Amino acid sequence: MFKKILIANRGEIALRVINACRELGIKTVAVYSEADKDSLHVKFADECICIGPPQSYKSYLHIPSIIAAAEITGADAIHPGYGFLAENAQFAEVCKSCGITFIGPEPDHIRLMGDKAVARQTVMKKNVPVVPGSEGGLSDIGELKSLAAKIGYPVILKASAGGGGKGMRVVWSEDELQSQFETAKNEAMAAFGNPEIYLEKYIVNPRHIEIQIVADKFGHVIYLGERECSIQRNHQKIIEEAPSSVLTDDLRKAMGQAAKKVASAIGYSNVGTVEFLLDKDNNFYFMEMNTRIQVEHTVTEGITDIDLVKLQIELAAGEKLKLKQKDIRITGHAIECRVNAEDPKTFMPSPGKIEAFHTPGGPGIRIDTAAYAGYTVPPYYDSMIAKVIAHGRNREEAIARMKRALEMFLIEGIKTNIPLHLKILEDEFFIKGEINTHFMEEFFRRNEISGTE
Amino acid sequence: MFKKILIANRGEIALRVINACRELGIKTVAVYSEADKDSLHVKFADECICIGPPQSYKSYLHIPSIIAAAEITGADAIHPGYGFLAENAQFAEVCKSCGITFIGPEPDHIRLMGDKAVARQTVMKKNVPVVPGSEGGLSDIGELKSLAAKIGYPVILKASAGGGGKGMRVVWSEDELQSQFETAKNEAMAAFGNPEIYLEKYIVNPRHIEIQIVADKFGHVIYLGERECSIQRNHQKIIEEAPSSVLTDDLRKAMGQAAKKVASAIGYSNVGTVEFLLDKDNNFYFMEMNTRIQVEHTVTEGITDIDLVKLQIELAAGEKLKLKQKDIRITGHAIECRVNAEDPKTFMPSPGKIEAFHTPGGPGIRIDTAAYAGYTVPPYYDSMIAKVIAHGRNREEAIARMKRALEMFLIEGIKTNIPLHLKILEDEFFIKGEINTHFMEEFFRRNEISGTE
Repeated sequence: MFKKILIANRGEIALRVINACRELGIKTVAVYSEADKDSLHVKFADECICIGPPQSYKSYLHIPSIIAAAEITGADAIHPGYGFLAENAQFAEVCKSCGITFIGPEPDHIRLMGDKAVARQTVMKKNVPVVPGSEGGLSDIGELKSLAAKIGYPVILKASAGGGGKGMRVVWSEDELQSQFETAKNEAMAAFGNPEIYLEKYIVNPRHIEIQIVADKFGHVIYLGERECSIQRNHQKIIEEAPSSVLTDDLRKAMGQAAKKVASAIGYSNVGTVEFLLDKDNNFYFMEMNTRIQVEHTVTEGITDIDLVKLQIELAAGEKLKLKQKDIRITGHAIECRVNAEDPKTFMPSPGKIEAFHTPGGPGIRIDTAAYAGYTVPPYYDSMIAKVIAHGRNREEAIARMKRALEMFLIEGIKTNIPLHLKILEDEFFIKGEINTHFMEEFFRRNEISGTE
Repeated sequence: MFKKILIANRGEIALRVINACRELGIKTVAVYSEADKDSLHVKFADECICIGPPQSYKSYLHIPSIIAAAEITGADAIHPGYGFLAENAQFAEVCKSCGITFIGPEPDHIRLMGDKAVARQTVMKKNVPVVPGSEGGLSDIGELKSLAAKIGYPVILKASAGGGGKGMRVVWSEDELQSQFETAKNEAMAAFGNPEIYLEKYIVNPRHIEIQIVADKFGHVIYLGERECSIQRNHQKIIEEAPSSVLTDDLRKAMGQAAKKVASAIGYSNVGTVEFLLDKDNNFYFMEMNTRIQVEHTVTEGITDIDLVKLQIELAAGEKLKLKQKDIRITGHAIECRVNAEDPKTFMPSPGKIEAFHTPGGPGIRIDTAAYAGYTVPPYYDSMIAKVIAHGRNREEAIARMKRALEMFLIEGIKTNIPLHLKILEDEFFIKGEINTHFMEEFFRRNEISGTE
């Protein structure tokens, strides 16, 4: 087992890793930017090293400084947390070449899953369903028509070079295909200087369902159920829960098996998440694989009683996975709300000094935070300052617990999105579990909030 | 269901009751003494009423003020928490006569269990084992000798009028019986003006094991496993855990059945705890029954996933107990450490202003506290300021979690017993689960701490 782990991160996830290391009897090294000198991860790590100015690219993303810190302190492994360098294949490679274990998968696996087209090809070969579409760009309207007919409407046209919605057009029937194709091409040309368009089936109001997988270096892969992450704003998850209200045991098993296939296909090890879209007829489609611990790993811990960060460390150290698929028991329901330092109306970040802070307790409530009374939230990083995780015997109890916990989470001095969470938790569609990735847009419309500035 | 509950308590248990009420959609009324105006239970209750000066007997124990507060606010029930009026039969009676539901058992049951001799008689009739002994005082040495021989040595002589160790003598063999009897009588006479002495079997190094029972008003009683509460200092519990390391399934069942018998014998309803002594041969003896929610109810919640305070409220409102004995599943291991504002060396209370406060998080950690940075711990009440509850898949994991949680529980400005807890958690006997009610005395001796000033 490792003797000393450097944590290449900050905030609550850095504390989360310290928790796991302490339970395993491993020493920790914190790295921090000048903006984070009063942070708790600095206080609670066994050693700490300042690695540069506040700007991430000069500190938390600055590979040479982090490697130097590991070498100076004699750390034998690095935990990247999430964000920053967590899915940076080059960083994983540099660690390896320096003889430091990167706590995560092999660099090649990070790279493979980071390239969406390669990832898609890889999983298709294993018969894991992907969103049907053209392999590459299409220029001929005849080809387009026949493919769209084969896939079935609605379809979506996307710019090969694109992103951010530019050159993107949903087409509901063949009648509009040609005109939309022209529009999309023109938009793509104008935006990216490249008119190439590809086609995909348009999944109407899908759910974002992800499967947590765990794999050791000996080819043993298991899945720990799913997380429902459909509550998103601008592709940022806000609320996650497990299990999903719509998965039957059979569907869970099918998705779990598909996720295992993805991991097995590439010989993946460590923890990972296979993200799927689920349509209203319960067809699921591979989206991507995240090769790191995720913010929302907590809800899986809530329903399985398995410490994913400890497991990550053990697996990176080359231990065999002792858990078997049949050992996994799902108990009750867990929900996570991400508490962000932001204005709940404008969604603008709200950094500043926290004047008063009280975290709620009681049964079924877990609070992961690095904030405290007197702490100043710096403006340089992600605005998430706390995760509130509520576990209950069922979804109803988990929601009730989350509500009272958020109501009794006292944060003064900065604005937070707690009022938004409370409104979502009282939304009739949320309560019924009738959610999909467009939930927030609909929610903003219903509540006359301009949610996407 | 109740519309509004008045909470006749303060501190973490008042918040705990607010948690439960909010989950059940019930309004709350806080009462508070002048010393508690900045307390969180005042902040988070829907209404609040000051009931008097800091001294308990003028506020939290002052029945007329509390009843008046309930009547003014239209509360239809009162939750007494633990301590203060929780086991005051007269208070329960006054509530009843005012048409306010006392959230707890009937006044008669509180009274019956409050009288240790009557409680003993009651349970003996149901063949629940009690510590064998004389029924009442003994004056004749011959009678004493034959009873001691029948019970078996060692025995303990106790003053009928006594308490606090005065007139108490452990007798290891018949040789010393007469002389110890004379000494005990003289001591009892000197201390209480009454030389009457009774005799009990002396249980050598017993464990304190208590069974949590839950009963509705329709005669349905279940038990939720045991709590091991042997880590005590001056009869104050410091660390509690569940399950006990020594109970087999059969013994758990036997003790559970005995506890149910005690509750059934008197038609008890609401939650309650039946306390037993367990000797090293796994014989158990009824000690007493606590007719309230206990500080350490949290460890039972940890291993059963059942919210005992919500259950208490539902049962007091006359709901039927939906849980059946066979539904109770015990999962993993839970430990509670009581964090007290006290000097860890002298055990003197350490009230004052909390300058910095950060509660630990991560999986398996629950923190119940009403303290916060800037809060002043008043000198008038119990010194407990927080409960840290760690749950793990097994005892080892629960201990590791508790340790790292306590190490990362930041409290500045006042002294706490966290260093003592950490020392206990590292004690080899504690780790092996080799504990009994004399653990702390031995622990102090081993560590050369003068634990009983």
